[in-house]
Amino acid sequence: MTLERKNYPHMPKPFGAFMHAVRTGEWLFISGLTAGENAPPDIVEQTEITMDRMKKVLEAEGGSLKDVIRVTVYVTELDKLMEIHEVRNRYFGDALPASTLVQVTALVRPELKFEMEAIARLGQ
Amino acid sequence: MTLERKNYPHMPKPFGAFMHAVRTGEWLFISGLTAGENAPPDIVEQTEITMDRMKKVLEAEGGSLKDVIRVTVYVTELDKLMEIHEVRNRYFGDALPASTLVQVTALVRPELKFEMEAIARLGQ
Amino acid sequence: MTLERKNYPHMPKPFGAFMHAVRTGEWLFISGLTAGENAPPDIVEQTEITMDRMKKVLEAEGGSLKDVIRVTVYVTELDKLMEIHEVRNRYFGDALPASTLVQVTALVRPELKFEMEAIARLGQ
Repeated sequence: MTLERKNYPHMPKPFGAFMHAVRTGEWLFISGLTAGENAPPDIVEQTEITMDRMKKVLEAEGGSLKDVIRVTVYVTELDKLMEIHEVRNRYFGDALPASTLVQVTALVRPELKFEMEAIARLGQ
Repeated sequence: MTLERKNYPHMPKPFGAFMHAVRTGEWLFISGLTAGENAPPDIVEQTEITMDRMKKVLEAEGGSLKDVIRVTVYVTELDKLMEIHEVRNRYFGDALPASTLVQVTALVRPELKFEMEAIARLGQ
Repeated sequence: MTLERKNYPHMPKPFGAFMHAVRTGEWLFISGLTAGENAPPDIVEQTEITMDRMKKVLEAEGGSLKDVIRVTVYVTELDKLMEIHEVRNRYFGDALPASTLVQVTALVRPELKFEMEAIARLGQ
């Protein structure tokens, strides 16, 4: 099955040896997205930017956030967990994915506090 | 491909914007499960409760732990790693999955020490 | 769909309740690989060993690193991130996967600094 390697114009080009996402048939594997360079310090605002970026990735593939099966979320602080989930609720609506969320030591840059990767199945 | 979003009665309802699992055809993506509220302090006991919860998720889908392809395990301490694997061995038996295990800073609640997510393929 | 549970002779047998990889049809889920016992202290050298091990897993399945859809990388330090990506670039070449990379507290043994798991789709 062919793998289609994808970068999207609404996000900075990956700084390292990876793509924004890889598609194989109906399946889309999205890299860990963050609020990127110039991210605001607040983790809730970072969540908002990241969710918006993920939404646009799915739209670029002809889908939507409803197609997301599971997300894995990495955060560097847990204080605003409920506010993070409010943002996630607003974006996912009734189409909630499976999820794992853990607190890690750091993301790729010290100012980043929220990272979300996803597996989606398109073509519904 | 339709996504079926699932919560199960043997576990507390998710506190945030996610489901216990999402099924798409034969594939089942299970959220990071833990021993939940009122978890015992011992990580080995938490492993036991979590494994039992995962077993029941798979049974609710007409499958079993034999259908698990890969687990990702997040722990907050590594001291009892071999005992954790004894519990896992007891539950998985001969049908061992692929696995990743890392120590993270924290799980969603401070008393939680063990979290396991899984990808399964049913219908064997 | 049958699950094929795989261990490979080029790596030590798993110490716990898991296999090196599980294959189901075209899909291959590879456990978190590391440089293993007697790993050199340098994270860049550990990356090299791990990439080589992953390459050999894929070759044993009749594929190559080009079949990798997404990797998840866990590191215990971020100082040599660009050098890690140089190694990854050298191995993946033009066929870059999706990726998530986070810094965690520890991997299964204190001397390990780099771990990489992967999802691949073979038969291209």
